[in-house]
Formats: sequence, structure tokens, C-alpha cells
Amino acid sequence: MHETYDSEIQRQAAKKNYPVRLGIIGGGQLARMTAIAALPLGVEIVVLEKNPFSPAARLSPDSIVGDWSDPETLMRFAERCDVITLENEFVDANALAVLEQAGHKVFPNAACVALTQDKLTQKQALQNAGLAVPQFQAIHSPEAIVSAGKKFGWPMVLKSRRNGYDGKGNFTLRSEADIPSGWQALGDGRQELFVEAFFPFVQELAVIITRGRDGAAVVYPVVETIQREHVCHVVKAPAQISSDIAKRATEAAQRAVETVGGVGSFGVEMFLAASGEIAINELAPRVHNSGHYTIEACDCSQFENHVRAVLGWRLGNPLMLAPTAVMVNLLGTEKTSGQPRGLENALRMTGARVHIYGKTMSGPGRKMGHITVLENSLEAGLAIAERAAKEIYFGD
Amino acid sequence: MHETYDSEIQRQAAKKNYPVRLGIIGGGQLARMTAIAALPLGVEIVVLEKNPFSPAARLSPDSIVGDWSDPETLMRFAERCDVITLENEFVDANALAVLEQAGHKVFPNAACVALTQDKLTQKQALQNAGLAVPQFQAIHSPEAIVSAGKKFGWPMVLKSRRNGYDGKGNFTLRSEADIPSGWQALGDGRQELFVEAFFPFVQELAVIITRGRDGAAVVYPVVETIQREHVCHVVKAPAQISSDIAKRATEAAQRAVETVGGVGSFGVEMFLAASGEIAINELAPRVHNSGHYTIEACDCSQFENHVRAVLGWRLGNPLMLAPTAVMVNLLGTEKTSGQPRGLENALRMTGARVHIYGKTMSGPGRKMGHITVLENSLEAGLAIAERAAKEIYFGD
Repeated sequence: MHETYDSEIQRQAAKKNYPVRLGIIGGGQLARMTAIAALPLGVEIVVLEKNPFSPAARLSPDSIVGDWSDPETLMRFAERCDVITLENEFVDANALAVLEQAGHKVFPNAACVALTQDKLTQKQALQNAGLAVPQFQAIHSPEAIVSAGKKFGWPMVLKSRRNGYDGKGNFTLRSEADIPSGWQALGDGRQELFVEAFFPFVQELAVIITRGRDGAAVVYPVVETIQREHVCHVVKAPAQISSDIAKRATEAAQRAVETVGGVGSFGVEMFLAASGEIAINELAPRVHNSGHYTIEACDCSQFENHVRAVLGWRLGNPLMLAPTAVMVNLLGTEKTSGQPRGLENALRMTGARVHIYGKTMSGPGRKMGHITVLENSLEAGLAIAERAAKEIYFGD
Repeated sequence: MHETYDSEIQRQAAKKNYPVRLGIIGGGQLARMTAIAALPLGVEIVVLEKNPFSPAARLSPDSIVGDWSDPETLMRFAERCDVITLENEFVDANALAVLEQAGHKVFPNAACVALTQDKLTQKQALQNAGLAVPQFQAIHSPEAIVSAGKKFGWPMVLKSRRNGYDGKGNFTLRSEADIPSGWQALGDGRQELFVEAFFPFVQELAVIITRGRDGAAVVYPVVETIQREHVCHVVKAPAQISSDIAKRATEAAQRAVETVGGVGSFGVEMFLAASGEIAINELAPRVHNSGHYTIEACDCSQFENHVRAVLGWRLGNPLMLAPTAVMVNLLGTEKTSGQPRGLENALRMTGARVHIYGKTMSGPGRKMGHITVLENSLEAGLAIAERAAKEIYFGD
């Protein structure tokens, strides 16, 4: 019989007679779904999160409620974990570097997070690697926007280099007249900005790539994402595109994750032009909303593969087990309690797989849950998912 | 638009502005898998378990380490929960009745647990309902076994009325000569016993039934279970039986759960004779090892449906999404630490879905995890599952 192979992390856990412990910085729904995927592998999670009522922190008695920007808290957290990962890209890369210097294993690593959390350096890196991205330019004054507009034409998108998500940190400039309000909306000179030429897309695509510590990667199907007011609303898997476009999108996504040295599951968002041209919009160094469908639809979900990747384990099969999957987000509409109402109606719809994130509070556009439907056609799946989603609201 | 329907339990949670909280008595792998299924529905679990290192208790900060036979502990636990369920049938039914009298919701209820936790009264109830069971008789002395043997013929199985599982509490009597050792092995007169005629089975079958609080039930496919030394080793779904046998097995299982007034997921184990005759072996008032395959194979697993049933929610679709599923248990071989070793080898096998229960200690025959494989044929699935299972052992 061949030799039993234990990963480094498993040997270490066995020495301590303790389960492998995966630390997650951030305790939102992405951490929660990662934890749910980690448990069947015998892996415990430990969460570091500011919000004492976060969706994920309550799943481990060793979770720490605290600020990840405080080095002492971060170090105390790290000492409880075998490997550390993150559920958002807003953790200061310098803090992660300090953890690495102290000998802690952090994936994706500090260099990768530094490169990607600044959307300008991310774009530069992708462009330098020969990948297509919309034209862009760093901006230090309103006047610089005027001259960029002359070069790129209107509309353009003014963006914060850091901390943007779900349209926050973005401002669409239709013409020069919008510059003052855009400048003010994005920090009035107190934030680092850049502008991006508007890419005339006919579809938005996304691909989840999981890349292991050894560089081996698995690629999930190309999906279509449909945004409403800059928030992901619907994901259709697989995207209805030609095999040539799918192949180019897949290759671009895989090269993008390699370029930034990613380890773990990454979401790569792309624009598709009428001409068939593809440009990378942005890359998130973490599990991604466009991959939630993989929980039901794929042999091994983006969450389980993220766990495997950061622990240095063999990656699972990303192939879809059903012909199509549709995911619809459940978004909050107003600031109220996070109680899911009408859940019972949604559960009555056969095939609607309901995910409620367990957030204490709802808010306008806040991601409170999602619904996935596997069906023989995207049309059939979308009809069920949207009907089920309409039944659920959040509040007292 | 039609009215939004909230279940009673959801309205109650909304009033408290708190997630719905499901209490589980027992913190083993069944509770853990139930918790993993409950979380995506936004349901928190609370565990009551003696063992401070149980697989499930660590998943909730409100879990109580304590003895469920202590009424005060049980009441303190109940006060934290909206609904209470159990992961084993050994909880004293009288204690559950006290909870019910105090106004707590317990499913399955105390009457059902009382009826089923005593295997003699369970068998009597099934027989009285006209369901086929092997012949049986209560036993109060070794002499009574002799006369039962004259009636039923040899071999016979001597059984404890309570607290038996995985062959514990059973003793096969090949002839009168075995009576003294059997009598002694099962408590030397200090336990209530019965004997059962040996049923000449060619296959063991099992069916998971989930029955709602309103009596509506869903039925999972009939599966074949293969035991080794009285412990479930392999489950093949669906069983390779005629549609007539499947129909009769399904009907018998459904009637059995109705007969005992079950609410939640129940496992019904049956014997199949060469003649095609079916007899019910026993019924477990809880999620069951023979239904673990439903996590990957079915639209809605036995665990999620158990949660929905006891909360009074609409049940999900039990249909299989793949042609076949095979589950192989990972059993401990010796008393050692519960560290899973060789996991990495098993994960290398595409299609092997590994479940590690996170137990601190292993032991001979102890259920430490399982592997499920979905494949086009049971043969192909079994080959992969057994290869993967062989890679994993437990210890330092």
C-alpha cells in the first residue's frame, strides 16, 4: 500500500490533538458560508469581526469580537489559528504582512491583498500582464478628470482606489458637468481616486477561480451577472455565450488570479462587448457573490474549495451537476430588523434553495440572503427563483 | 398579492427580534449535520450534551454542557429554545413530557419517543397497526427463552428493550446452549428483554420519512443498507429492488411513522426475504445513518427536512438529483485520538464527498465520518467511496 500522505497542516493539528483551525477575518455571510463548508471536513473556524452579532462569529466559541486594524487583537486572533484567510479585501495589507513576519500562514498573502485592495494597482498589474481592462488613469484633481474625459470620452466612472463595493466608491460621470458632484461624493479630495473609461458592455460575466498553494487551479463555469443599482441581483450559470467567448473569459480570469499571486477562491468580474471583446472589470481576492450558486450546483463549492486551497489541500471538482443554476439575491429594502418574513411561502416552492444569512439588521440594498434554483433551463430557474425571492422580506 | 404567511415560530422569533432557535438534545454527528442544515435557513441551534467536546455543541455559544436526565438542566436548556428536538432516542420520555407540560414544543413528542424508545412497545404498536414485523415475545427469565425457542425456532435474537444501538443490546442465540451467555451479556436479569425470531433476510432496506407537524410526509427512496458486525457500513441508494417491493417498503415505512405519531425525519429499517416479503426491523425517531446520502443526493436532505418539519415549515423535495448514491461509513478501529489522517489522499479522489464529524476520540466501531459518492452506477460509486474510505484512519 502506498504511503499515507498528510498535509503539513494536518500533521500539525495531529501533534496538538486538535482539529485544524481556520481563522477568517470578517464575520459576514461569506465567512458563514465558508464555515458551513469547512465543518464537514472536520475543520473548525475562528472568526475575527467587529460586529458582535455577525452571521459567522457565533459559530465558534473562539471567535474574537474586535477590530482587525488593531495589531494586538489581530495577533491574539492569529495565535488561535493554523491558517488565516479573509472574507473581504479591506483588511489592511500591512497588518497581514506583520502576521506573516511573525510566522503565521495567511492566504491570500499580504502581497496579493495589497495589490488587489487598491483597484488602481490591481488594474495596472492586470494591464502589465497583457490582460484587457477598460482604460483608466489616476486622478489627483478635478482638472485631471477634465483632461481624462478629453482622452477617454464620456461617460466615465470615477472610482475610489480602496474600500469600494456594491457601487459604493463609484460615481458615474455623464459629462464634465458631473465632475463637482462626483468629486465631492468620493471624499472631496481626501480619497485616492482614478477614472475609468466606460466600457460598452452587452453582458457582465464572472468566473470563480480557486487556486491552491501549489499554484494548481480549478475553474468554475463562466456565469452572467445582472446588477441593479450596482448590486449583484441575479447570477445565471452557465452564461449563454459562445464557447469561444467562454474560453477567452476563462483564460483571462485564470491569468488574472495568477498575476496577483492569488491563493483561495477569487471572483473575477468581466465586461463583454458586442464585438465579443472582453475586459476585466475587477477581481476580488475572496469567495464571491457570483459563486454562491456553486453550493448546490457544483460537486465542490467555491467555499469548500477555498478552505481546501488555503489549507494546502487538494482542490475539488468545480463541474456543475445540473444543466443550469440561477441565483437571486435577497436584498434589504429599509433599515429594520433582519428577521426573515414570508420564508414559509418561499419554502413552498419546490426547487427554491433558500439561504438566509442571519443578519440582525436589514438595510437598503443590504445582502440578507439568496435563493438558488437548479433547473433544466435558465428561464425556468429564474422564474422560480424570482417568485421565491419576492415572498421574502426582512423586518419586524 | 396574496397574504404573506409566517409560521407561528417565525412570528414568535420576529417578536423577540431573534433568530428561530432550535434546541437539540444530544451533540453528536446527527446534531452537527442538523445544525449545518439549519444555518442556511437562518435558524440557530442550541445543543444540550454531556460531553464538553461534542461535535455539535461548539457550533452555538448558547449550548449547555450538562446531563439531559437532570430536570433542572433540561428546563434551563428548554428556555433557550423555540422548539426542541433530539438526535437520539435515549432521552427519557418522561423528562420530555415534563417539558411539554411546561409549554415547550418538543418534536417528536414525548408520547412518540416513549413508544419508540422501548423496542418492545414499538414492535407491538407496529404489529397492532397491521404492519409485518418479525415474531417477538417479552422475556423475563432464561426459561422463557427456551419456550420461545420452541415456538420460533433457532436462531433467535435476544434484545434489550431500551438503549440498544449498533448491535449493542442485541445477542444472537444460535441454540439453547447460548442462552446463559446471552442472558448474562444483556444485564443478567437487570434489563427488560425480548426475543425476536430470526427473519431470513436477503437484503436489509431502509427508508427515511419526514413527517410534518400537520401530518404531511415526504418519502425518500428505498435504500439498501449493508451492516458489518451490526454497524451500518454501506448504504446504496436507490436499492436495486423491483418497483413492487419498493412500493410496499415505502408504504410500510410511511405507515410505521404515522402509527407512532412521528414528527421530523425518521429512519425505518426493514428486512427483505427471498420471497419478497418485508418486515420492519426497527424505527428510529430521528435522522438516521441510512439517510446521510441525502445531503448530496437529494434536493432537500433528511437534515434540512427534519428542521423544517419540527419548526412546522413546509417540507422540501426528497427526490434524488443523481442516478445513484453510495455512502460508506468511516469507523474507528481502536481507542485513539479522533484526528483524521490521510484525509488529503481521500480528497484526491474526484467525486468523494468527505464528512468528518470532529470527534475528539476514536474507538472500535465508532462512527467518525462518512463518504458519499454520486455516480451513474452503484458499482462505480461504491468503488470510489471504498477507495477513499480506505485512505482515512483516525489517530495521532
